[in-house]
Amino acid sequence: MSRQGAPLRLGMVGGGPGAFIGGVHRMAARLDGRWNLVAGAFSSDPAVSQDFGRSLGLEPARAYGDWRTMARAEAERPDGIEAVAVVTPNHLHAPIATAFLGAGVPVICDKPLTVDLAQARALAGLVDQTGLPFVLTHNYSGYPMVREARALVQAGRLGRLRIVQVEYVQDWLARDLTGNKQADWRGDPSRAGPGGALGDIATHAYHLSRFVTGARTAALSADLATFVDGRRVDDNVHVQLRFEGGARGQLWASQVAPGAANGLRLRIYGEDGGLEWSQEEPDLLRHAPLGEAPRLLRRGGPGLSLAAAAATRLPAGHPEGYLEGFAQIYADAAELIGAHRQGRSPDPLARLAPGVGDGVEGVAFIEAVVASHAADGVWTPLAA
Amino acid sequence: MSRQGAPLRLGMVGGGPGAFIGGVHRMAARLDGRWNLVAGAFSSDPAVSQDFGRSLGLEPARAYGDWRTMARAEAERPDGIEAVAVVTPNHLHAPIATAFLGAGVPVICDKPLTVDLAQARALAGLVDQTGLPFVLTHNYSGYPMVREARALVQAGRLGRLRIVQVEYVQDWLARDLTGNKQADWRGDPSRAGPGGALGDIATHAYHLSRFVTGARTAALSADLATFVDGRRVDDNVHVQLRFEGGARGQLWASQVAPGAANGLRLRIYGEDGGLEWSQEEPDLLRHAPLGEAPRLLRRGGPGLSLAAAAATRLPAGHPEGYLEGFAQIYADAAELIGAHRQGRSPDPLARLAPGVGDGVEGVAFIEAVVASHAADGVWTPLAA
Amino acid sequence: MSRQGAPLRLGMVGGGPGAFIGGVHRMAARLDGRWNLVAGAFSSDPAVSQDFGRSLGLEPARAYGDWRTMARAEAERPDGIEAVAVVTPNHLHAPIATAFLGAGVPVICDKPLTVDLAQARALAGLVDQTGLPFVLTHNYSGYPMVREARALVQAGRLGRLRIVQVEYVQDWLARDLTGNKQADWRGDPSRAGPGGALGDIATHAYHLSRFVTGARTAALSADLATFVDGRRVDDNVHVQLRFEGGARGQLWASQVAPGAANGLRLRIYGEDGGLEWSQEEPDLLRHAPLGEAPRLLRRGGPGLSLAAAAATRLPAGHPEGYLEGFAQIYADAAELIGAHRQGRSPDPLARLAPGVGDGVEGVAFIEAVVASHAADGVWTPLAA
Amino acid sequence: MSRQGAPLRLGMVGGGPGAFIGGVHRMAARLDGRWNLVAGAFSSDPAVSQDFGRSLGLEPARAYGDWRTMARAEAERPDGIEAVAVVTPNHLHAPIATAFLGAGVPVICDKPLTVDLAQARALAGLVDQTGLPFVLTHNYSGYPMVREARALVQAGRLGRLRIVQVEYVQDWLARDLTGNKQADWRGDPSRAGPGGALGDIATHAYHLSRFVTGARTAALSADLATFVDGRRVDDNVHVQLRFEGGARGQLWASQVAPGAANGLRLRIYGEDGGLEWSQEEPDLLRHAPLGEAPRLLRRGGPGLSLAAAAATRLPAGHPEGYLEGFAQIYADAAELIGAHRQGRSPDPLARLAPGVGDGVEGVAFIEAVVASHAADGVWTPLAA
Repeated sequence: MSRQGAPLRLGMVGGGPGAFIGGVHRMAARLDGRWNLVAGAFSSDPAVSQDFGRSLGLEPARAYGDWRTMARAEAERPDGIEAVAVVTPNHLHAPIATAFLGAGVPVICDKPLTVDLAQARALAGLVDQTGLPFVLTHNYSGYPMVREARALVQAGRLGRLRIVQVEYVQDWLARDLTGNKQADWRGDPSRAGPGGALGDIATHAYHLSRFVTGARTAALSADLATFVDGRRVDDNVHVQLRFEGGARGQLWASQVAPGAANGLRLRIYGEDGGLEWSQEEPDLLRHAPLGEAPRLLRRGGPGLSLAAAAATRLPAGHPEGYLEGFAQIYADAAELIGAHRQGRSPDPLARLAPGVGDGVEGVAFIEAVVASHAADGVWTPLAA
Repeated sequence: MSRQGAPLRLGMVGGGPGAFIGGVHRMAARLDGRWNLVAGAFSSDPAVSQDFGRSLGLEPARAYGDWRTMARAEAERPDGIEAVAVVTPNHLHAPIATAFLGAGVPVICDKPLTVDLAQARALAGLVDQTGLPFVLTHNYSGYPMVREARALVQAGRLGRLRIVQVEYVQDWLARDLTGNKQADWRGDPSRAGPGGALGDIATHAYHLSRFVTGARTAALSADLATFVDGRRVDDNVHVQLRFEGGARGQLWASQVAPGAANGLRLRIYGEDGGLEWSQEEPDLLRHAPLGEAPRLLRRGGPGLSLAAAAATRLPAGHPEGYLEGFAQIYADAAELIGAHRQGRSPDPLARLAPGVGDGVEGVAFIEAVVASHAADGVWTPLAA
Repeated sequence: MSRQGAPLRLGMVGGGPGAFIGGVHRMAARLDGRWNLVAGAFSSDPAVSQDFGRSLGLEPARAYGDWRTMARAEAERPDGIEAVAVVTPNHLHAPIATAFLGAGVPVICDKPLTVDLAQARALAGLVDQTGLPFVLTHNYSGYPMVREARALVQAGRLGRLRIVQVEYVQDWLARDLTGNKQADWRGDPSRAGPGGALGDIATHAYHLSRFVTGARTAALSADLATFVDGRRVDDNVHVQLRFEGGARGQLWASQVAPGAANGLRLRIYGEDGGLEWSQEEPDLLRHAPLGEAPRLLRRGGPGLSLAAAAATRLPAGHPEGYLEGFAQIYADAAELIGAHRQGRSPDPLARLAPGVGDGVEGVAFIEAVVASHAADGVWTPLAA
Repeated sequence: MSRQGAPLRLGMVGGGPGAFIGGVHRMAARLDGRWNLVAGAFSSDPAVSQDFGRSLGLEPARAYGDWRTMARAEAERPDGIEAVAVVTPNHLHAPIATAFLGAGVPVICDKPLTVDLAQARALAGLVDQTGLPFVLTHNYSGYPMVREARALVQAGRLGRLRIVQVEYVQDWLARDLTGNKQADWRGDPSRAGPGGALGDIATHAYHLSRFVTGARTAALSADLATFVDGRRVDDNVHVQLRFEGGARGQLWASQVAPGAANGLRLRIYGEDGGLEWSQEEPDLLRHAPLGEAPRLLRRGGPGLSLAAAAATRLPAGHPEGYLEGFAQIYADAAELIGAHRQGRSPDPLARLAPGVGDGVEGVAFIEAVVASHAADGVWTPLAA
């Protein structure tokens, strides 16, 4: 794990007081010592951004009240940021990422990539054109045992894929939370995009299954529901999936399931075996070869792939969690961006970090779900 | 559990050498001492039936080679059977049940009730007309903690129902098993009916969710698959559900999921709480009131409903399993049939045993799934 | 599992109204159809015994008010009982078993064998002398996965044994239960013998570890406690163990551990692997070969021993529980006693049922624990 | 969680290339942004220390080849370290801590505190005399749900304490690992002290139970074993415990239990309830009030204590692990040391971090175990 070299300089847009995901990005960036946060536009209120920057130990001049100014100013500094983390509500991802890419700054962007597919494609085009690294924080793909699952699939241990069952279940929106900062923007289509649970968590589930299986969705049939009165977006997502190659699946995402905390869970089955992984016990992976007793693979344990081992910080039984998985995406980003700066090829394992292409596919997934639901569940192909 | 009176006399059709479910019915009937098996038509080969009857300690005269003869002969005996268990392949349920009902004999029938809805309705009509008890062995509804779940729903502990996720997953048909007696008839539409995993296990999952929630399915959208080459019926079932009253759900049944043994699992969520139950740990029920720590309810433990307590044989921590749950259906049947013979009202809890109406609804479910799948997943109402 | 032949005739002493274990013995005896209960002395009050016998469908003449009369009368009948189940409080085991053995009747006896070692040895001598089958219902050794564990040890899969951790934990005596029939005799040294939790459950834990590992205890160091005021016997048992061959262990038994139901659990470790089994999930056995991922072995699953397979009634995933494990001891007893009557060698697997020798060792264990505790934990050898 | 203020300057002694715990300390210190590592004596080889310091981004002048020099030099710098982390083999803890305390530098020290009790007491005396903060990294007490368990005990939710079962089980030393750097010093009494598993992990188990229950050990009876040929220290530890106030317990620590990873587990029972916690699922705590269904408390969930909430970084279901628990000790240390520098009282919750008194008691525990074992398990009081 200890990849060497001086820390890279990181900037952040969003993530001010009361934000959840901004603090996560900062802890994840710090954990491995490969990033120093040196600049930020944490709030559209300059005084708030100033105060917040100071609490993080930033130079006052680098706590900006405006991301456009920040992009321009940082690009001009000799010690300017070497990447920006975009952790705002969804509708701002595209303009902010565009501004920083335009200023030559690589981007680490929260998901979903954008609020519509046209925007997503435009952004992907810009990434292509600039050649700059772009990392999308589908953080669950940073877990070592998720990477192990992917390695087992690629090694053919499941045989031909047949079934994919993926779910992401929470309960924090089971009641109306109007007034809660986290809930408000997620429930506002003008900031979150067309999906509620769909954009917030179903896209994680979609990416997880895509990352592990490699299988592309051919078509889907969706049923969205909004259970809480007055809510303007979905809070429950049911999708049936048909994959290229013939596999079938179901996806369920909900934010109104009492007793569920952050229940992202993947189960996949091929001709020769099955795999089960649950985010709430991320260090474990159950592998059942057909006709044999299931094995409990454990992070740090014997016989794992290079991909899992390289994403591991601690010995088996010393639990790694959400922040370590998230930190892995930042570690991969450091490798990709460091290599880019040095003009060398990155460690191939760093390419496991999700990129702008995953983001485009995620937005295509959202749009296909919305379209299928609007057409009473008709099987709808993914546009991407 | 309070057992009344002398054991009742039971006959059986089917369940000869090599059958799985016949032996289960016999153990379940024996467990509580409320039934004596005294007659049977175990095979269409009279010599086989004779030998098998002898191995069970039956009088030779009551081991029949033919169920028509058995129905007639037993009806004429003063010590004739007081109920018949029908444990044949599905296509014979209707004619056999019809013959015994015609001879005045109550019926305990395996599921699915029949191979088509017309047959099912005709049978239900005959049950109505004769007034005879009829019990369908959706055995999973005999588990105490399934009855506890139902009691909690009825007591309003979940509030208005929102989400139903039910699955029944196995792996024993992941490969072609041609030549295996159990697999062969289940894979032959002329004996099993139009469903494979659909009739064999998805109907159990459907009944379980119906039994616990009480919610009727308004419409469903289905996707069937057959993964094993040469198989003539489905081996994987994906269904999305819309319930009367607005709840939504997913059902998954598969017999080709490596690592799954007999994974029947129900999760339901209402406005105020959630419940989770898994058949492989049947003594436990997880109840999560919204905003409180989840509780692990345990069969035999404190604070359970009368319905759960009455179906319990052992103290908490002394595991009860599949046979005890199945035995509960036989105990209920003994109460219903005993009360019928005595002209009294049965213990109301015995009415929890599934009946012919559940059988009709199960066949309607099968037909709706087949129809929806044939129409590319169009939302299809249940006929029942 | 279906071993053939007519059912054997069983008698029972004890197990009348309100008794727990009598009903368990009756269900266990019935389950496999190898025993018919035909006689009993269920209570020392003849009227109670009569009523109870009638409720079980016995002939009135065979519901005795006195076990001495029963032994004599049944021995004289041509259709007399072929075995007697002794399910009384502990202090009566020896005199009752002695009477029936004296009358030529094989015995199935609850544990612990007797209330002191002299009695136990005398009884073992009588068994030897008569040559009659004698089965002790250490029922947990009837579980298929306990037999699998034993088979793995015998096959050398753990290598040389190093560590044994066994525990049996309940909470039903956490408060004073004076007036509860089950609690009263267990708390009365004149009926239960010198141990409370020690005799009631620690002996099960001791037998389980002995059965699985085969290792004899060389010496032990014990600390008994009585936490509930007024209780005359121990309710918590802590023991350290040294085995012949060098292994070490700990045993914990408690009836005052809130939240514990019937937590019998065994963990053993050798040079080459470890095994873990818990009675509350009896169908599973975790096997961890050193340096490999642990495997989850499951009753009915692939690759198990003959001993496990022979004790299995249902396919994997269809839970078997306490009654099925108990029934296995009755099935073994039927084989041993049937073979004895027929003058043939029994199926060798039936010899897995515990016998009088296990009973003597169990009483020696109790006495060694009491002696060690009285001597402030001094290492004390087992007398047996 | 985000307590404000500029990061403190940290130095480290030990923890160079190939060390395990040094890297852990660095990640833990970084996570919350409250510490900057600015100096270190990472190796007794100056060149190695230099290289390693450079890889961590330290100024060359502050990567020392000798901790005595470091203590002196840092004490003289105006920007000298504000605390030192001592992460060497055990025998060096006392001299290094003594040197830094003598130079006025607060100490964060790995456990066990020292290799004998006299040394431990002398060090505690020096801490008292200097008045400097001293934190001992019994890191498991940093887990939020461990703090929740302690809060529940203190709130009287278990009633009077009766039973303590604690264990810490690993398998990495099941074979001879001579040549492995981690194993070598731990197996060398001149560097590790008199205990093997005893000093390395049993002391963690001891501290965990002491931290949660608050109960002092009155006396213990111990049995040590060394299973691997040639090993000079114990690799398996069995202890029975008697607590002041009457509670009893068992402690088991092993490094030779195949299949165990880092199995630290605590179960405690009082008159009114029980608690169970396992380090491998650190976010969960099972609380069983006597006579009620057990509750699954979850980090970040509803109804937890202030102590648990204050140690929490992420919402429920986003797993926190070993590094987060360890980081909490560093966060507490930052608060204690920052407050000391500022001459104010620290947040009272920061006092939950273990201190030098815990270290003295841990060494007393080690010595009592060794003495009891040497005297054949005689009950031995703790000297502390």
